[in-house]
Amino acid sequence: MKDFTEGQIIRGKQSLLFENAPYIVSAASVVGSKEAEGPLGKYFDMTNEDDLFGAQTWEEAESTMQKEACVLTLGKAHVKAEEIRYLFGGDLLRQGIATSMGVEALQIPMFGLYGACSTSGEALALAGMSAAAGYGRYMLAVTSSHFGSAEKEFRFPLGYANQRPLSAHWTVTGSGAFLVRSAENESDGDSSSGAEEQDVDTSHISHVRIAGVTVGKIVDYGLKDSQNMGACMAPAAMDTIVQNFEDTGRSEEDYDHIITGDLGCVGQSILFDLVRGKGYDIRKKHLDCGMLIYDRERQDTHAGGSGCGCAAVTLASFILPRLEKGEWKRILFVPTGALLSTVSFNEGASVPGIAHGIILEHVPE
Amino acid sequence: MKDFTEGQIIRGKQSLLFENAPYIVSAASVVGSKEAEGPLGKYFDMTNEDDLFGAQTWEEAESTMQKEACVLTLGKAHVKAEEIRYLFGGDLLRQGIATSMGVEALQIPMFGLYGACSTSGEALALAGMSAAAGYGRYMLAVTSSHFGSAEKEFRFPLGYANQRPLSAHWTVTGSGAFLVRSAENESDGDSSSGAEEQDVDTSHISHVRIAGVTVGKIVDYGLKDSQNMGACMAPAAMDTIVQNFEDTGRSEEDYDHIITGDLGCVGQSILFDLVRGKGYDIRKKHLDCGMLIYDRERQDTHAGGSGCGCAAVTLASFILPRLEKGEWKRILFVPTGALLSTVSFNEGASVPGIAHGIILEHVPE
Repeated sequence: MKDFTEGQIIRGKQSLLFENAPYIVSAASVVGSKEAEGPLGKYFDMTNEDDLFGAQTWEEAESTMQKEACVLTLGKAHVKAEEIRYLFGGDLLRQGIATSMGVEALQIPMFGLYGACSTSGEALALAGMSAAAGYGRYMLAVTSSHFGSAEKEFRFPLGYANQRPLSAHWTVTGSGAFLVRSAENESDGDSSSGAEEQDVDTSHISHVRIAGVTVGKIVDYGLKDSQNMGACMAPAAMDTIVQNFEDTGRSEEDYDHIITGDLGCVGQSILFDLVRGKGYDIRKKHLDCGMLIYDRERQDTHAGGSGCGCAAVTLASFILPRLEKGEWKRILFVPTGALLSTVSFNEGASVPGIAHGIILEHVPE
Repeated sequence: MKDFTEGQIIRGKQSLLFENAPYIVSAASVVGSKEAEGPLGKYFDMTNEDDLFGAQTWEEAESTMQKEACVLTLGKAHVKAEEIRYLFGGDLLRQGIATSMGVEALQIPMFGLYGACSTSGEALALAGMSAAAGYGRYMLAVTSSHFGSAEKEFRFPLGYANQRPLSAHWTVTGSGAFLVRSAENESDGDSSSGAEEQDVDTSHISHVRIAGVTVGKIVDYGLKDSQNMGACMAPAAMDTIVQNFEDTGRSEEDYDHIITGDLGCVGQSILFDLVRGKGYDIRKKHLDCGMLIYDRERQDTHAGGSGCGCAAVTLASFILPRLEKGEWKRILFVPTGALLSTVSFNEGASVPGIAHGIILEHVPE
């Protein structure tokens, strides 16, 4: 347990607890057909029957989902793209092309990110850090993945109809976007649009804030099986969760839920064991977005969902509304990523993991 | 010209000028044999004859360069890896694998980035923003590229011996790392290591600070020629440079130099024309890292150098020492990136660009 001073932002080795914690003002989720048929189907904002969203390629479809998620998020909060100071976005594809092509039309100054399936956590962390630092009133965080483009990128094009082991994940077709607002109503200093922004009312500010972050480090237990990413990512999830406890002086008792990104059922059981080895027991508090998003038996998705979109759309559609209502008071959201490429895999490199922790809290009226 | 209030961080639409501007405490450059033979050869910290740095593959060699650049940078400032709060890093390879494998051993909480060849600007911007916000005493920014791994990733494996048009760039084999230190000597709140860090003397603080940033947006003029990246990136460079002028109320007169990342000679002439169209003339102030790093005639590098490593090693070896000595008082460093992948290129997508501007200033004794 660390001895920290109240009012100080920096906690322990890897965490920040914000003095003026920014709000998540709105969020939106766009998903494919399989996700729409799953247990969370009714909560998503937008879906599409053929998973192409009117595009000609899987990559272009993924870009379209990102753009739609951003536009929906902005629309919900009645905020225009020009009011967004910085955008933080990423996806799984090589050179983050789904993001570049997806957010281009919005013309928001942007930071491209890569953290594999942990990218939604990375984007929310940086958006929260930038808003809390007073670098602008609004920040946008967006991530996506697409089953078709991810299979082509990491495994085989869909036409090959290859078989998958039971430990394999099913990449979520989906994009989630989040509008983060600074806790303070400071002008953004741009005199040309400042007058207009001063008049924005704050009635749409939600009751959820990013209270803090625990930035993850790369954790490598030497596993090399790209068809068992839950096992590759579980050590990183453990590392970030335990570090969050140590940095903040909290334990599983202080969170309503600890929600990982896409460990799936194989990764979950490994996580439980690893965390127990550190003296904590999170079994009663743990949820995993990859296990929530599909009906494992009915939808034949093996270990569970995965991808940058998995944690993002589950947060936007299922988790945030519960925090907004106050059903949950505080959660630790921990998207998990497996750091591999076809090149590193073919060269025999191991698959290290990374996980970023985001502390989300309900703010009473 | 904007009417801004002194002491306010946010300027105009895309820029930040820091109240407590952080310092670049140290920097290091690791390069391949061709770069060592070029005009800047004598300034680099480390080189290697066969460009493999003791590794078996180009990717592993690139990771080794990143690790060595980080270790050298830390060593120059007598700072240990555990004292670094957050690392911001990226490279050109799919899924940023050179960075993941390169910095893994340092065990620093990290944010993976992708901004193509603009990534060194993105990393310095985020490291500067995090340090200026008081999120930690030390931040590390690192990027790399490797001719062998980049040709394999984007064009053809070296063994194919393909011919290149004169507008093509030569990807720099190199990695640059930068240690950014907060202007304030606050403790990082970790009681276990705090005492030790309190004793660190400040004599190694350099005379260069990150005074501000202009975060770039994606600029797409519809060009599709991946063998003429200078033309693809020039519009983004213009956009960021002109936005910096407008946001800060400055012009080319206020900078000793405006230094782009890797436009090369083709991109440079386009940049001059585009900037002139906006009412500025930067011809006397402009330098380009891609043109500085190679001797175009002698080294047969066509349009110039490129890659995440190009701007990074030129900044570390050639630019920062001139700022440190006060030979230059203020520069605008503008790494430029072309956002493409083999998939987007093969699908006929255009190659948009992005450029991030970093204002670097000499601080007198």
